[in-house]
Amino acid sequence: MTTYFDPPRFAVREAVSRALAEDLAPLGDLAASLLDPETTTAARFDAREAGRLAGTLCAEEAFAQIDPRIEVSWVLRDGDVVEQGDTIGWVRGRLAPILTAERTALNFLGHLSGVASLTATYVEAAAAGGSAQVWDTRKTTPGLRTLEKAAVRAGGGRNHRGNLSDWAMIKDNHLTGLGISDAVRRCLDLWPGRTVHVECDRIEQMVEAIRAGATAVLLDNMDPPEIVECVAAARRLESEEGRRALLEVSGNVTLETIAAYSATGVDHISIGRMTKSAPTLDIGLDIGADPSI
Amino acid sequence: MTTYFDPPRFAVREAVSRALAEDLAPLGDLAASLLDPETTTAARFDAREAGRLAGTLCAEEAFAQIDPRIEVSWVLRDGDVVEQGDTIGWVRGRLAPILTAERTALNFLGHLSGVASLTATYVEAAAAGGSAQVWDTRKTTPGLRTLEKAAVRAGGGRNHRGNLSDWAMIKDNHLTGLGISDAVRRCLDLWPGRTVHVECDRIEQMVEAIRAGATAVLLDNMDPPEIVECVAAARRLESEEGRRALLEVSGNVTLETIAAYSATGVDHISIGRMTKSAPTLDIGLDIGADPSI
Amino acid sequence: MTTYFDPPRFAVREAVSRALAEDLAPLGDLAASLLDPETTTAARFDAREAGRLAGTLCAEEAFAQIDPRIEVSWVLRDGDVVEQGDTIGWVRGRLAPILTAERTALNFLGHLSGVASLTATYVEAAAAGGSAQVWDTRKTTPGLRTLEKAAVRAGGGRNHRGNLSDWAMIKDNHLTGLGISDAVRRCLDLWPGRTVHVECDRIEQMVEAIRAGATAVLLDNMDPPEIVECVAAARRLESEEGRRALLEVSGNVTLETIAAYSATGVDHISIGRMTKSAPTLDIGLDIGADPSI
Amino acid sequence: MTTYFDPPRFAVREAVSRALAEDLAPLGDLAASLLDPETTTAARFDAREAGRLAGTLCAEEAFAQIDPRIEVSWVLRDGDVVEQGDTIGWVRGRLAPILTAERTALNFLGHLSGVASLTATYVEAAAAGGSAQVWDTRKTTPGLRTLEKAAVRAGGGRNHRGNLSDWAMIKDNHLTGLGISDAVRRCLDLWPGRTVHVECDRIEQMVEAIRAGATAVLLDNMDPPEIVECVAAARRLESEEGRRALLEVSGNVTLETIAAYSATGVDHISIGRMTKSAPTLDIGLDIGADPSI
Amino acid sequence: MTTYFDPPRFAVREAVSRALAEDLAPLGDLAASLLDPETTTAARFDAREAGRLAGTLCAEEAFAQIDPRIEVSWVLRDGDVVEQGDTIGWVRGRLAPILTAERTALNFLGHLSGVASLTATYVEAAAAGGSAQVWDTRKTTPGLRTLEKAAVRAGGGRNHRGNLSDWAMIKDNHLTGLGISDAVRRCLDLWPGRTVHVECDRIEQMVEAIRAGATAVLLDNMDPPEIVECVAAARRLESEEGRRALLEVSGNVTLETIAAYSATGVDHISIGRMTKSAPTLDIGLDIGADPSI
Amino acid sequence: MTTYFDPPRFAVREAVSRALAEDLAPLGDLAASLLDPETTTAARFDAREAGRLAGTLCAEEAFAQIDPRIEVSWVLRDGDVVEQGDTIGWVRGRLAPILTAERTALNFLGHLSGVASLTATYVEAAAAGGSAQVWDTRKTTPGLRTLEKAAVRAGGGRNHRGNLSDWAMIKDNHLTGLGISDAVRRCLDLWPGRTVHVECDRIEQMVEAIRAGATAVLLDNMDPPEIVECVAAARRLESEEGRRALLEVSGNVTLETIAAYSATGVDHISIGRMTKSAPTLDIGLDIGADPSI
Repeated sequence: MTTYFDPPRFAVREAVSRALAEDLAPLGDLAASLLDPETTTAARFDAREAGRLAGTLCAEEAFAQIDPRIEVSWVLRDGDVVEQGDTIGWVRGRLAPILTAERTALNFLGHLSGVASLTATYVEAAAAGGSAQVWDTRKTTPGLRTLEKAAVRAGGGRNHRGNLSDWAMIKDNHLTGLGISDAVRRCLDLWPGRTVHVECDRIEQMVEAIRAGATAVLLDNMDPPEIVECVAAARRLESEEGRRALLEVSGNVTLETIAAYSATGVDHISIGRMTKSAPTLDIGLDIGADPSI
Repeated sequence: MTTYFDPPRFAVREAVSRALAEDLAPLGDLAASLLDPETTTAARFDAREAGRLAGTLCAEEAFAQIDPRIEVSWVLRDGDVVEQGDTIGWVRGRLAPILTAERTALNFLGHLSGVASLTATYVEAAAAGGSAQVWDTRKTTPGLRTLEKAAVRAGGGRNHRGNLSDWAMIKDNHLTGLGISDAVRRCLDLWPGRTVHVECDRIEQMVEAIRAGATAVLLDNMDPPEIVECVAAARRLESEEGRRALLEVSGNVTLETIAAYSATGVDHISIGRMTKSAPTLDIGLDIGADPSI
Repeated sequence: MTTYFDPPRFAVREAVSRALAEDLAPLGDLAASLLDPETTTAARFDAREAGRLAGTLCAEEAFAQIDPRIEVSWVLRDGDVVEQGDTIGWVRGRLAPILTAERTALNFLGHLSGVASLTATYVEAAAAGGSAQVWDTRKTTPGLRTLEKAAVRAGGGRNHRGNLSDWAMIKDNHLTGLGISDAVRRCLDLWPGRTVHVECDRIEQMVEAIRAGATAVLLDNMDPPEIVECVAAARRLESEEGRRALLEVSGNVTLETIAAYSATGVDHISIGRMTKSAPTLDIGLDIGADPSI
Repeated sequence: MTTYFDPPRFAVREAVSRALAEDLAPLGDLAASLLDPETTTAARFDAREAGRLAGTLCAEEAFAQIDPRIEVSWVLRDGDVVEQGDTIGWVRGRLAPILTAERTALNFLGHLSGVASLTATYVEAAAAGGSAQVWDTRKTTPGLRTLEKAAVRAGGGRNHRGNLSDWAMIKDNHLTGLGISDAVRRCLDLWPGRTVHVECDRIEQMVEAIRAGATAVLLDNMDPPEIVECVAAARRLESEEGRRALLEVSGNVTLETIAAYSATGVDHISIGRMTKSAPTLDIGLDIGADPSI
Repeated sequence: MTTYFDPPRFAVREAVSRALAEDLAPLGDLAASLLDPETTTAARFDAREAGRLAGTLCAEEAFAQIDPRIEVSWVLRDGDVVEQGDTIGWVRGRLAPILTAERTALNFLGHLSGVASLTATYVEAAAAGGSAQVWDTRKTTPGLRTLEKAAVRAGGGRNHRGNLSDWAMIKDNHLTGLGISDAVRRCLDLWPGRTVHVECDRIEQMVEAIRAGATAVLLDNMDPPEIVECVAAARRLESEEGRRALLEVSGNVTLETIAAYSATGVDHISIGRMTKSAPTLDIGLDIGADPSI
Repeated sequence: MTTYFDPPRFAVREAVSRALAEDLAPLGDLAASLLDPETTTAARFDAREAGRLAGTLCAEEAFAQIDPRIEVSWVLRDGDVVEQGDTIGWVRGRLAPILTAERTALNFLGHLSGVASLTATYVEAAAAGGSAQVWDTRKTTPGLRTLEKAAVRAGGGRNHRGNLSDWAMIKDNHLTGLGISDAVRRCLDLWPGRTVHVECDRIEQMVEAIRAGATAVLLDNMDPPEIVECVAAARRLESEEGRRALLEVSGNVTLETIAAYSATGVDHISIGRMTKSAPTLDIGLDIGADPSI
């Protein structure tokens, strides 16, 4: 079911068109004037290191916007595991526009696969400790929110809220003159049906938030023993009052510590690093590769 | 002379407007409805780790686009060294719009300062070995080319070509049916006055490129002893023929090896990692900070 | 001759692309991830009430922008009368993108057919009294001027000026220090060849405007007997001086009174309600309909 | 707490800029050339019928984009009740640009206040029967989603999901090969923390959806007695299993029947008509009004 | 009454923003990094040849978009006659942004004043022969229609139709299967109130068009004696039937022949060259000029 | 090798889409409603005067954006010499959209071929005197930089810098507190690898600039004897110091004098007139032409 990994097309079209314009303005591809415009070639996307693939729609769109006659075919798709040396896909058509679009296509593929790959690493590490899902954050690269959130899904992570508009997150700065209970109730009244998510520094805040009806609580900057206490308290609340909230852990969770947090029984662990600090995955385009091999 | 570090304003305006829209569509900031719209605050940008600052124009623009009455003042500016705990600047105004713009401002500041900081690390490491300048590449985050190249300058690096349009780079894929000398001469004829830059895998190619009049040569994937040979050959050419080309090293240079490459006497070392894989610099916004301290 | 009803394509493309983005940002269609992406279907556009059709180009464009492989075929076209239960057209292709584009396509179709249908009702009512044409106004939904004016044509109405730029309308607020005659002459001099249209509250103003050379006069907020007097005066002017102007009635004309106004012999009756207050026409998309029936 | 009624500024800016361009291209305001550019005036926004106000930010922006020196001040704000004859606000500045922006400002104000006013009518009618909140739908005017949803809030309604991306709504068309329980669980797994909303035609579907963990259920096209049964069943489930879901009624609810539906004890009643078929509220701009009165 | 010469602001904003982006992408103004960012200057716009001024709004906007603190003041305005050596206006502010915006400001000023100046030349030449007004055409520079048509007005010319949408022009290619009379009547019916303009190659066509009710006729590629005949025939028609149409001459009219055409008694002479082939007017910016002189 | 003459596609798409919108907003092509929408035709692009062709990509795009089913085929391409009477290409398809796109297509073709033709005239005149290449400038029509620079290449000219970002040009205004040598060295340090180009009024400045390492010098407003001296001095510098710079002549060079400047031995002569003051080339579209001839 690949559509779960796909970003919406309009976001792909706009991001690619912007990236091509920034690589070509104002005069176009100077070096292309050295080439015979009728020469054609085949080129192969190669994985130069192992990871998780994302961004194929963007790479494909880059070639299509430069020359709609270029054909792109994929051996692997977003969400697939790639090993070093894997053939990811093929590009066939005129050499000049392929070279013009190459770097833009690779910049998308490398960056988004980098996000997917780092996500997969966290997901795997969390799974070693328990069943917590890995959530992304709003700490994304400006202008690439939609594409990076799709890459997180391709890496096996889940999407936290998409932005300030899709669910309400109550942080301490929102509590000017309002207690947690009042804030939660007000949110449930003003934005009914939507997730109401409360940032909590202490177990008492969590209890207050859940009692007031919060959908989810963020346990901020706590260590695993504190989290264990929170999980136990949340379960008691559930059996006593029938109230259930998702428990999220956030703050300074690393690849080394994520298993321990996952083992506490929380539902989600959110990791900013996956989108804000992911190194690119090394993917190349081997121009003139022999497609018969 | 701070303007060397500033990206052009139109790029700042467009990138920020896009980032705010992606954080607010379709309904706006839900949680802001909890706040008294007249409450005001002061907030302090804090460096939570040491590095190099970039992106202040973007952060400022994020607040201005949400509420033009918010005042932003900077203690430090793009290009400045920041130490952990440093106050970077202040934001004063109504709390609700400050919270709305906060994450967007921090995403720009963190990402661009991350690029500047990683650049500064490479620049410093290169300086330990010799006087080679550090160049960025076209391996940038799609849509952020202009801002990331400005951040590289803020980190003490220099900008390689901006895109396919501003100088001509001849790679082996451009040499279909043309030798290096012919390709260089053709470029000099078609695009006179512009940089003609030739990718070379072997010393003979470098010699041919310089003899033909190339402005710069990229010595691709060579180790330091090979580079030393190239530098010596280039100097002989210069004294014999009066031809001088910039020598660039590229390919697999790391923080550990950059000093050795810098010591070879080349002019530039280009590093893709600075723009494609820089982790963000941890900068926070301390809402409600006491501005009198 | 269907092109009379068609809005220009650039307006269709832009309006649809905007509408899809507002329905999909930032994460895309969440529920689509439940679907097998290869499942295909046929779906039928059904009229759930009687009216006049408009907006088929927009509906078609919505599917094309989401998935160019979806095929849309129309049984009825803009300007056609639809009866309750009529099949309007068919959509065939993959189920997931059809569901994603469905609401956007229906929003255009319903809104624009609503405008066309209300227009048709006024046109029919006016025809019962005389031969006055029904004109729209500039009271359109912001951002949809072009599409709504096309829908008015589909409903049998005619377009008044498109905007402030295509013909000059002189209202009392424009007469600061200028009499009607001077204002008309000045307009004819500054904007020769263009329609000069004068808003008149009294018969004397109408006479002055026509004598000065106005192309059209708007008889504002008069009742049918007053209009009859104006028509008679205008005809006398025509036979005496050879000057002819279009006579427009405007202001508080309703479905009940329009026939009486039409019977006065005026040329045009303008109705703001058709574009500013038209209820949507109920059109549905029956997914999985049997195309063989 | 007015910010709850405000649409985000970027949406205001874009919608107004589009509307002004469509009213002025290609030549600008022809009739403005009759005016002395230095003449100034005061103008008063008047309510010509009673209702609920919305769209003041858009009206203000229209004047600001035409001439930043025009001053707009409001007596009433979004969300306020207006009576026929009320002064809503004042515009002061040069007459020519005020006339140029007038229609655009009024089109926004009339349309959005129309949405708010119709919403208020439904909200009041529902309150007469019980405590159900009134929800809007995705049946909005293309391109105006953000502004119309803000107007619904100004009218006392609440916003259902903003678009396909912010919460998951499972309709029968999504159930190809999946039962309700599986679909709900899959959604909760793929989009954790988000609202999962299930459209149900029968009480058994509702029970299955709630048991599977749905956040909300839409009771589609049922009459009040059927709804009463559903509410009772939902309450039994809640006390037995601790599972609580929001109950929404949708489909053919009218101003006449809404009180009866509200009396059934459901949480929400959604009404498409408020955004897709709202007549404009009649608001005028009285140019040259005496501001001292 | 200067507003007659002003293009609408949205067109100014968009054209300037596009022009600045094309001059600055991707890295900004390289040479600006040589300047002390705090150095300020005064600069004077000088006319280096005589002509007619247009484009001041665009020039002003160019500086404002680069640095809102730059002050621009005008000694002369659009529509004014300029003599060689005249001071047109002053720019004061920081030197670096003034240099960055200089060329863009001058490109607008030079091009639009070039259009205004060539227009003024034709207008003057036509006035020597008679009272015909000079009309522009749709032969404008792509993307600059709005600004060039405003420049024509500044030069004393008048605007023919703005585009395909504001009035209907019937050319021979539109007469496939329809005679002129039918085509005119159809246009008057479909687009009532709008200018219906008929291209005529022979006097009989003109007579048919006027009889059918055309607003204007274009006498295409006729010489002055033929035009004189047409004018006489048109006057006879007017006195016999009371029908009056504007008479336009078009096709191969030059500066040398325009007086002869104007002397024929036609109403308008349209000249494509004013917008499609106008040389720029030489206007310079004298940086560092002494403002006290 | 035609790609040297092609502008990048994104620039073509945007410029054409803008030009069509300005010709069609808000109502579309009024006169098209007279036509049977199914009538088809063939139409021939004819050269009505001799020159050099440019802009075919834009003309083609205009038809494609209006109706993708229109077929355009070219007999001649950008860069080709055209004689009066030559057939340039053919358009086949439905008559109505062909008429709608005709003027936009011709406006691009005429303007860009006008630029190419004037360029060719200068190139030929320069070749009569020597081997200097003809350079364009930044004095381009706002918004058309990319397309006009491509047209210059089609005319046999070469492109000077594309904008402020692609190479550094040091003018006297940049020398506030810095001598030429320091400015050149600073530029070489800040923007290594890029062209550093110095404007010189006197031979001493040229010598200083070349000694400091400038890539190119602009000899401003000198007459041929002065240029001859500069060339001699530059050659002495080259043989003494091995430093070579491109020599550019600029300022008041005309078609009459260009051969004399070319004979001086300089490398480039830059001409603003080619882009800022080129008259259009007269190209027509003969609708209904017989394609069998």
